[in-house]
Amino acid sequence: MKVTSKQIAEICGVTRGTVDRALHNRPGIHAATRDKILKVAAELGYRPHFLAQSLVKGRTKTLGVILFDIHNRIFAQLYHSFEAEARRRGYVVYLVLSNKDKELEIQYINSLLDRQVDGIAITPVNFGTEFASLLAKAQAPVVTFGNRVSADIPFVWIDDRQAIAESVRHIYAKGYRSLIYVSPPLRLKGKQNIGTPEQRHLGLLDACGELGDLRATVVTDRDFVPAVVRALEETEGKPAVLCSSDVYALEIVREFKQRNIRVPGQAGVMGFDNIDTLQYVDPPLATVDYNVDEIGRLAAELLIRRIEGQVIPPRTNVPHRIVDRESL
Amino acid sequence: MKVTSKQIAEICGVTRGTVDRALHNRPGIHAATRDKILKVAAELGYRPHFLAQSLVKGRTKTLGVILFDIHNRIFAQLYHSFEAEARRRGYVVYLVLSNKDKELEIQYINSLLDRQVDGIAITPVNFGTEFASLLAKAQAPVVTFGNRVSADIPFVWIDDRQAIAESVRHIYAKGYRSLIYVSPPLRLKGKQNIGTPEQRHLGLLDACGELGDLRATVVTDRDFVPAVVRALEETEGKPAVLCSSDVYALEIVREFKQRNIRVPGQAGVMGFDNIDTLQYVDPPLATVDYNVDEIGRLAAELLIRRIEGQVIPPRTNVPHRIVDRESL
Repeated sequence: MKVTSKQIAEICGVTRGTVDRALHNRPGIHAATRDKILKVAAELGYRPHFLAQSLVKGRTKTLGVILFDIHNRIFAQLYHSFEAEARRRGYVVYLVLSNKDKELEIQYINSLLDRQVDGIAITPVNFGTEFASLLAKAQAPVVTFGNRVSADIPFVWIDDRQAIAESVRHIYAKGYRSLIYVSPPLRLKGKQNIGTPEQRHLGLLDACGELGDLRATVVTDRDFVPAVVRALEETEGKPAVLCSSDVYALEIVREFKQRNIRVPGQAGVMGFDNIDTLQYVDPPLATVDYNVDEIGRLAAELLIRRIEGQVIPPRTNVPHRIVDRESL
Repeated sequence: MKVTSKQIAEICGVTRGTVDRALHNRPGIHAATRDKILKVAAELGYRPHFLAQSLVKGRTKTLGVILFDIHNRIFAQLYHSFEAEARRRGYVVYLVLSNKDKELEIQYINSLLDRQVDGIAITPVNFGTEFASLLAKAQAPVVTFGNRVSADIPFVWIDDRQAIAESVRHIYAKGYRSLIYVSPPLRLKGKQNIGTPEQRHLGLLDACGELGDLRATVVTDRDFVPAVVRALEETEGKPAVLCSSDVYALEIVREFKQRNIRVPGQAGVMGFDNIDTLQYVDPPLATVDYNVDEIGRLAAELLIRRIEGQVIPPRTNVPHRIVDRESL
């Protein structure tokens, strides 16, 4: 049973302030009164421990972060900067992984709320108005990154549509007239939140609309590596393979090496994210760079500002830039 | 204020079982009694929510994991399998990162205990009898991996000493007679828990003791890349660079490429961990492989078995094997 200082005060016939003085061993209280209060508190099993204090204060100084996974380096990097900023501001951060499972994501949101986190940052797998409403009504504020849920739920990320449009223009400017665009998550449209892959795909369509003589093939297969090889065989001239994520580009470059397909001699390859793995890979991979540390930092800052009652912008974009390298 | 069913029972003059029947809407109770109990419960603000139930039950079905960081892929992989096994057994896992900071590690242990996790798995940064005693006395069981704390605190890992001794013998068998051993954490001896680097170093000494004509240089510099280059310049004949972790080997191979030092033409390189990044790198890197997923899974299984009252072994080793590849 949890006992409060108020209850102890009533039983002892003193004020709550007096009880607090006794319990926290502060001056301004008669020894006899203090002893009586401590005796009553002990008898009632008063334990001012963390969870109980949290129940009273309604704050746990704890944030929950839900990521898809930490296999993709970009999210491992993002989490590190989130955690550092939260810690700097006096918060402990708990990380849980949804493994891109919609039910598990809901379970973890409830589990974090049950444990009374003060706020949640999430890469959403669920989508739609029902999910948006669940997040909006949650007893703790929510910030999203990786995928957007709705215009109301704060989102910290990059301008994906613009970034892919620029990538396509860059590839075109380097002389390529055919493009294989690789984005396996697009096959999950209507099944999962693929806000970011969809924005990137819109960027592809924007640029292709401008550049009349660029032919694009879109690969959305789960097993995208053989699909890219087939697309390459069916392409006239030398194509560029533009991947919606570096992790796909790494797989493709590896397969091309095994098949003795020269990069960029027979096909250009470009990724997206500029993950730190790229620095160990040959040929150096063209990609889209953005400050993922800043996304993590900003997400923590905004979430905490929101917890502390401030108004935060519904959308915050971090800048991106095209990184040209030998693979194009 | 938290109210228990016992309190409600006393006020209503019924047994606690009757209160539970009313509160959980179970049969075997008169309607009038149920209504009275529910009215009293409501007046007292009885809220059987998660944290409160945890206070009563003393179980939160939550585990805490403290890792150095998730920059090193090996720990990201380990965490994924730990989390999957814990989830399969009905536990939620929270991950926090110590960033190899001793104070932060203690802070997180206390923070997790405050939040009443049922058990903690940890890659320890602290060491010594005081820390061992803190873990042994914690109100939740602790399992360690990555570094050992003491013979009493359960440890799930590999036989590091044996693995490095085998690596050195393997290198010797390939004809190398000079070795540059790279283990930057060794410089932190006495400052941090470097149980695993120390075991690996002992393995080096074991093998060098056996192999009379093998000359070994040990590099422990924080800035190990230029130190390896200097050691290479000072070495007669072609040396093998044996790294206590793949992440060091990747940095060295990158530097060698930039300096046009051929691997293995001018120097062999071998790593340790067989992280998944290696599959994208040229030349394919010799390394020590072990089933890190099994370490994560076993750590979760053992921790939960311990929480549930079973005795678990103080030391569990997962097998390892030498992986020979083109870099040697």
